[in-house]
Amino acid sequence: MDASPFRSPQERQAERESKREAVLLAAVRMFNAHGFHATSLDDVAASLGVSKPTIYHYLGNKDQVLFECVRRGMNELREAADRAHATDGTGLDRLRMFLNLYAQISMTEFGRCVNRTMDEALTPESARRFRALKREVDLAMRALIEEGIADESIAPCDVRMTAFTLAGALNWPARWYRPEGEDQPEAIAATMVDVLTNGLAPR
Amino acid sequence: MDASPFRSPQERQAERESKREAVLLAAVRMFNAHGFHATSLDDVAASLGVSKPTIYHYLGNKDQVLFECVRRGMNELREAADRAHATDGTGLDRLRMFLNLYAQISMTEFGRCVNRTMDEALTPESARRFRALKREVDLAMRALIEEGIADESIAPCDVRMTAFTLAGALNWPARWYRPEGEDQPEAIAATMVDVLTNGLAPR
Repeated sequence: MDASPFRSPQERQAERESKREAVLLAAVRMFNAHGFHATSLDDVAASLGVSKPTIYHYLGNKDQVLFECVRRGMNELREAADRAHATDGTGLDRLRMFLNLYAQISMTEFGRCVNRTMDEALTPESARRFRALKREVDLAMRALIEEGIADESIAPCDVRMTAFTLAGALNWPARWYRPEGEDQPEAIAATMVDVLTNGLAPR
Repeated sequence: MDASPFRSPQERQAERESKREAVLLAAVRMFNAHGFHATSLDDVAASLGVSKPTIYHYLGNKDQVLFECVRRGMNELREAADRAHATDGTGLDRLRMFLNLYAQISMTEFGRCVNRTMDEALTPESARRFRALKREVDLAMRALIEEGIADESIAPCDVRMTAFTLAGALNWPARWYRPEGEDQPEAIAATMVDVLTNGLAPR
């Protein structure tokens, strides 16, 4: 049977999704490279050789595009927390797994966007939703720390401040990591997690 | 002797400096609260009940005002490194002192501005100077870690990555610390430094 020149609904849906994905990836790369304020949707459209209405069609206005970028990054973090939570091992083992994935996500395009986006770049409503997503990930981190304290693989500590400290350390590569650099995200993540888990003093 | 209605050169100089300081503090507070892009020098001037040319007179254009804010924050960090370096104790003691001061500076107005300012908010020349200041502080942190390794108060480690990890953790309060909150900077700093120094596993 000859291939039909007409696409099936499934093919059209898949094509629509791959186009939306291409637009989103072009946008997040430009936001990360040049800053949100310095990037216009015209720039994003031009980088793909399409028109600005095409961007609106797939993703909406600039606030909606940015929110979708940070939502993606937050989803990556949430999935990492779920994956770590479902793993065998001590609480410390599971926390280490989460920290490792967390650090690597800080070096993906969407993860970098999460950490480079200040609340004030978003509309108040999008900023509120962004904070709610961050709170979820913060609570997942605290739950893993608490499980480690309960099974005595983690020393008793101020859980909230420990979560802030770990997250801060692992968020920061979003500011200095350069994909064209020599260090690989996996190696950077592993080294950072060792520092954070083991501390500084000789054991 | 009656006080002269004419001010001495010293008084005029002191008055000039206190006005410049007031302008700078008003600017950094607005940048931190509303974001650099959302703040105009007109807003800063209005908050002080002065005109925009007054701002230009004391500090220059918006890029120069922002650069002066981050330069102040970087100076605080550099002075903290010098102070820690000149202290007695093991390398780890001195590093802990620096980390403690560093964390507290992340919660001052100028320190918060350092961490909230992306390179792309500055002109290329100011961004280059900002990076040079950050590199100085990074090297000071690495020197303290190396001294701790040399006197065996710090376990051998990847010095560069350890410095990035510590700095990242301590930079992050610039993003979540709220002066009106319950936690005091000294207490936050002390807890963070304990987490970073001791690690997570029970000893």
